[in-house]
Amino acid sequence: MTKDKDNDKSARDTHYATLRRAHRDARRERGEIPTPDSRKRAGQKDWKPPALEANQVFLYGLHTVRAALANPQRKNVRLSVTQNALARLEVEPETLGIPVDIVSPHEIERILGPEAIHQGVMLETRPLPVRRLEALKDSPLILVLDQVTDPHNVGALMRSAVAFDAGAVITTIRHSPTESGVLAKSASGALEMIPYIQITNLADALAELHDLGFQTLGLDSEGPAVLEDSFSGYKVALVLGSEGKGLRQKTRETVSTLARLDMPGQIKSLNVSNAAAIALYATRAYLKR
Amino acid sequence: MTKDKDNDKSARDTHYATLRRAHRDARRERGEIPTPDSRKRAGQKDWKPPALEANQVFLYGLHTVRAALANPQRKNVRLSVTQNALARLEVEPETLGIPVDIVSPHEIERILGPEAIHQGVMLETRPLPVRRLEALKDSPLILVLDQVTDPHNVGALMRSAVAFDAGAVITTIRHSPTESGVLAKSASGALEMIPYIQITNLADALAELHDLGFQTLGLDSEGPAVLEDSFSGYKVALVLGSEGKGLRQKTRETVSTLARLDMPGQIKSLNVSNAAAIALYATRAYLKR
Repeated sequence: MTKDKDNDKSARDTHYATLRRAHRDARRERGEIPTPDSRKRAGQKDWKPPALEANQVFLYGLHTVRAALANPQRKNVRLSVTQNALARLEVEPETLGIPVDIVSPHEIERILGPEAIHQGVMLETRPLPVRRLEALKDSPLILVLDQVTDPHNVGALMRSAVAFDAGAVITTIRHSPTESGVLAKSASGALEMIPYIQITNLADALAELHDLGFQTLGLDSEGPAVLEDSFSGYKVALVLGSEGKGLRQKTRETVSTLARLDMPGQIKSLNVSNAAAIALYATRAYLKR
Repeated sequence: MTKDKDNDKSARDTHYATLRRAHRDARRERGEIPTPDSRKRAGQKDWKPPALEANQVFLYGLHTVRAALANPQRKNVRLSVTQNALARLEVEPETLGIPVDIVSPHEIERILGPEAIHQGVMLETRPLPVRRLEALKDSPLILVLDQVTDPHNVGALMRSAVAFDAGAVITTIRHSPTESGVLAKSASGALEMIPYIQITNLADALAELHDLGFQTLGLDSEGPAVLEDSFSGYKVALVLGSEGKGLRQKTRETVSTLARLDMPGQIKSLNVSNAAAIALYATRAYLKR
């Protein structure tokens, strides 16, 4: 009797455990939770972030660091890498022109903490040079973000912006993520491929974009017309707000056009990453015509 | 001397702590990590999932439970809700026709564990009735997923499918998430709005869709033509594979058409959620013409 009950319970537990494990593994793959190893090694509870200088940026992960090393705009300081990761990184240390330290995973986790999926490689570098909006005058497509705060979202948006060959991603200095390891990791190399311009005042920046010949097109679920019917001119700056809050009132009043995505179904709003991907795709299709 | 150093360190620590807090809060908003309160109450390490019956499904979160209660297809069993959450749920308990238990958050966490962002409400229910593919004969747009395993991704895909008024989301029984609280929460109500059909054999299902008059259109970065130039007929079933792996070889061989998204930039692949959003948007635009 007891035995049967135990067997039964154990089968159910196994089923439930499988579901939970699949969920956890998926989160791990996305880098949202640490692997048990790194958690044990670094001792999650004991870890304290080290004091950082103002211009110190630590990038990590094979793909992210590889992209940073390949970016001639980057001023790199020091590469810390495990013996195994160095082989997978596929670079010649002597060609990098910076010190390369062979370290243990533990030494990397002392800087990054146990949550970072570093894959055995960490690059100390400087923030990318600040760009000015004038530099964008030759680009026909720009993505402007109005207080999208989550670095994972902004990272994903940068990937889409690169995929559709946008000239820059513009955000405000306040209420937007700074250049960081988390942003770089979510952007999965895209941070090195597209200027990330942080401006002080969004209304001023939109005015400057108008002067450069851009239509500034704000996405808003209450927009008077659908996106496809709202394009004009040869240069488009797409303006997207954060999930939930959307564009701020001041931004709504400043953009040249407000438009909505045509969604015929019961749900009338998408997350900002999906909305941006669609808008970039539609704008590219318009610019090609 | 010591004092200065301490001050300096503390300012840097505060800066770093702010960055980390913003990141953590964003994850919490997305429901990826528990709030400290719930973690403390349930004791994350001590929690063991309860034994579940085969047809027991627990949904949670205000929006998700509200949508399930509004779905006439749902066979509900029992609502467990805190006094506060009951007010926010905006339902009349006596109209539900099921037992409604006023409980403490702790009692909900005993079932769901400390990671579930339940907002004080948990609904025990039965899986939605199984649908057959024939039921889709009147729908012009269907989304088919080839082994997309992550329930968060599938949840987001269901939201996009509802937004673009697709008739169903079809997945394989194996290598796809089952109907669960995590899937429902990620779908944010969409699980109640669109049939989620799990089939045994994808090639057979595609053949059945062909018989129903669907063009089955597989998205593949190596597709011979771009999506906009690949549509034909009046009914389209979009077929998407998992990130990284893409469509399986057998699926590639079975779909009527392979097509790629036109991405002019340096990055040539998007995550499956963004790719699906774009494909659904483009297909709706085609079907409207």
